[in-house]
Amino acid sequence: MKNIKKRNAFYAQSGGVTSVINASACGVIQAVRKHKKYINKLYAGRNGIVGALNQDLIDTSYESNSAVENLKYTPGGIFGSCRYKLEHYKENEEDYEKLLRVFLAHDIGYFFYNGGGDSQDTTNKISQYFIRKGFDIKCIGIPKTVDNDLPLIDCCPGFGSVAKYTAISTLEAGLDVASMCETSTKVFILEVMGRHAGWIAASSALASNSRKKPPHIILFPEIAFNEKLFLKNVKESIRKYGFCVVVASEGAKNSSGKFLAESGLKDAFGHSQLGGVAPYLAELIKTKKGYKCHWAVADYLQRSARHISSKIDVEQAHALGKYAVDLAINGKNAVMASIKRISNDPYKWKLITVPLSKVANVEKKMPMKYITKDGYYITSACRKYLAPLVAGEDSPKYKKGIPVYTHFKNIKVKKIKI
Amino acid sequence: MKNIKKRNAFYAQSGGVTSVINASACGVIQAVRKHKKYINKLYAGRNGIVGALNQDLIDTSYESNSAVENLKYTPGGIFGSCRYKLEHYKENEEDYEKLLRVFLAHDIGYFFYNGGGDSQDTTNKISQYFIRKGFDIKCIGIPKTVDNDLPLIDCCPGFGSVAKYTAISTLEAGLDVASMCETSTKVFILEVMGRHAGWIAASSALASNSRKKPPHIILFPEIAFNEKLFLKNVKESIRKYGFCVVVASEGAKNSSGKFLAESGLKDAFGHSQLGGVAPYLAELIKTKKGYKCHWAVADYLQRSARHISSKIDVEQAHALGKYAVDLAINGKNAVMASIKRISNDPYKWKLITVPLSKVANVEKKMPMKYITKDGYYITSACRKYLAPLVAGEDSPKYKKGIPVYTHFKNIKVKKIKI
Repeated sequence: MKNIKKRNAFYAQSGGVTSVINASACGVIQAVRKHKKYINKLYAGRNGIVGALNQDLIDTSYESNSAVENLKYTPGGIFGSCRYKLEHYKENEEDYEKLLRVFLAHDIGYFFYNGGGDSQDTTNKISQYFIRKGFDIKCIGIPKTVDNDLPLIDCCPGFGSVAKYTAISTLEAGLDVASMCETSTKVFILEVMGRHAGWIAASSALASNSRKKPPHIILFPEIAFNEKLFLKNVKESIRKYGFCVVVASEGAKNSSGKFLAESGLKDAFGHSQLGGVAPYLAELIKTKKGYKCHWAVADYLQRSARHISSKIDVEQAHALGKYAVDLAINGKNAVMASIKRISNDPYKWKLITVPLSKVANVEKKMPMKYITKDGYYITSACRKYLAPLVAGEDSPKYKKGIPVYTHFKNIKVKKIKI
Repeated sequence: MKNIKKRNAFYAQSGGVTSVINASACGVIQAVRKHKKYINKLYAGRNGIVGALNQDLIDTSYESNSAVENLKYTPGGIFGSCRYKLEHYKENEEDYEKLLRVFLAHDIGYFFYNGGGDSQDTTNKISQYFIRKGFDIKCIGIPKTVDNDLPLIDCCPGFGSVAKYTAISTLEAGLDVASMCETSTKVFILEVMGRHAGWIAASSALASNSRKKPPHIILFPEIAFNEKLFLKNVKESIRKYGFCVVVASEGAKNSSGKFLAESGLKDAFGHSQLGGVAPYLAELIKTKKGYKCHWAVADYLQRSARHISSKIDVEQAHALGKYAVDLAINGKNAVMASIKRISNDPYKWKLITVPLSKVANVEKKMPMKYITKDGYYITSACRKYLAPLVAGEDSPKYKKGIPVYTHFKNIKVKKIKI
């Protein structure tokens, strides 16, 4: 049953951005433009939910269709994102009251929040609060996270592209160090994202079909780091192949659960701010074994590398944005637009709906059946899962050798006194 | 005048490899196959000059034409490279005597050495030694170095591709941090290669046409680091734009000439082994200003990123390989195949020849006219120089989302007792 009263919609991007979160934004905007019968204006929050709290809204209707289409090819978050966690309304109702006032003032009937685990939790809480207050607003979560750690979804938009970036970087840097190892660098370490789940590090194995080729060692946050065994494996790889490529999750931990790269700093969510497993490991290898090491920390480069995004990832991100709008105008509430895998090869998938209550605060780590018994590589089951997610290229346009990314006017909605 | 006696040729790769050094190898092999009248076999040294010293030679004639053509798309050094510096023969003649014995045994009449400054110096010394010993072998240098620091050449093969990688990475990560800056990361630091010359860091400015956009600050090795001024600029960028993107050369130095990231380790050439300017700067900014920072160290990823190589770079690398063979069969000796720029826009260039004696041991740093007066950005003259070098894409083929790089059999030449 369609919601007949024509109201406005709100969309915002949250958490760490990805190379395809704008493809979801594109899907949302295009679907809203298609469904003018049900939705009047689409307002975007500047910098995520913070834009709603501060009544800092962007009127997306000023953007041309071509600028919107080009969003598909543009990394980063076009409206700005945020790291802002709402407390539960039972503990602190102030933010919820603010949201309610802003949404009432702007006649928002649809709330789309595009983010990872914390954002799905936020969407769920907002939805609960609105129901409790008797305010009719459909709250739909649109998934996104390079960490691939959301439950009840085949894969998280943003992940496939980072997986592709990681696999290609491992392959290319692997060829480099293989050339150098006789008289120079013996070990190359690539640090990738993944605070609690090793999905990104795992995807480096797609660089080849053989464990004899890079990456020789993968460090997952799911497996406690064993220094002695690790160094033995590095030595063994050098003996066998002349060199060793290590791909390490930023969240690699020791047996007492402490991050190897613990910096002591925390972000707005209280998470430890990581970075530095690669130099830690390089120092360890140099000191204990004397091998010459090189290391790279991909950091934001991996999640913003739209030039090498996976085509399937772009398609899914875009489809989920459109689907979220369909769900809302069909009266769905407190759900997340999701993906179900039908088959591996050929890769077939369909859009499904899952309750936000089942998504919020659940972290999908790598299952043990995806990690080899020794703890340093992926199984063939894992390879079957990962392989389709990096398929296809969907290059941006280039001008004089540099990608042409879209530009949005991002015109502000006039503030209403509330 | 063509050298009529048909003899064998030797080719080797030296120093840090690039994403297009194999395009030069491809050019050499294809030219040799075209000039069967003058050159019999082309042997490659396994791991650079070390392969010649140890008589570890590869017979390239076993490789198929298509495998050779695909070399153009394959990063790393297909025959292996080396960091091995020959002392002057007046100080240590042993290596030279070895080379002479190996080359005599295998009837080598042409010596092609593909590398940077140290390798051109090596080629020059070998040439001088052979002339002194009355041994007729044409020694031709083929340039290569991502550092772009060779003299008497418009640009060094390998550089244009790293420049493109750096510009695109800066653009993409810049969009990422711009999305996050309101409530999270304010500063992003990208560390790139460039021990003594800031060419790679400079190329990050191709990410946009405006100093108001990333990169906001570039750190060149040519400009002494001034902590106070740097921090002032970071703060100013955050005040004006909400965030700050810094691109730092690994070789950034303080006013007493010490590398900011000095690790105390040295490579085979006695150079300090660098890495870690980005974490150093992040720590500095966090401690002194309290801004949240993210940092990336691109390391080998930048120079092996064949998936995003510049088309013009691939073309030049390939052309130089072919040209080197033409020079040799035309009797040239002790020269380097080089590139002269004819015009900027459209970019026109031609192949030229320069004496190795004028190339060896000269380092081409960024001229001061290419750096803005404040020391943190490039001038429009520099932009005019750099812009054409990143032009065009020349993607490898992909299979299931992963680039297909060539495979060589690398069949060993039978050792001759010498």
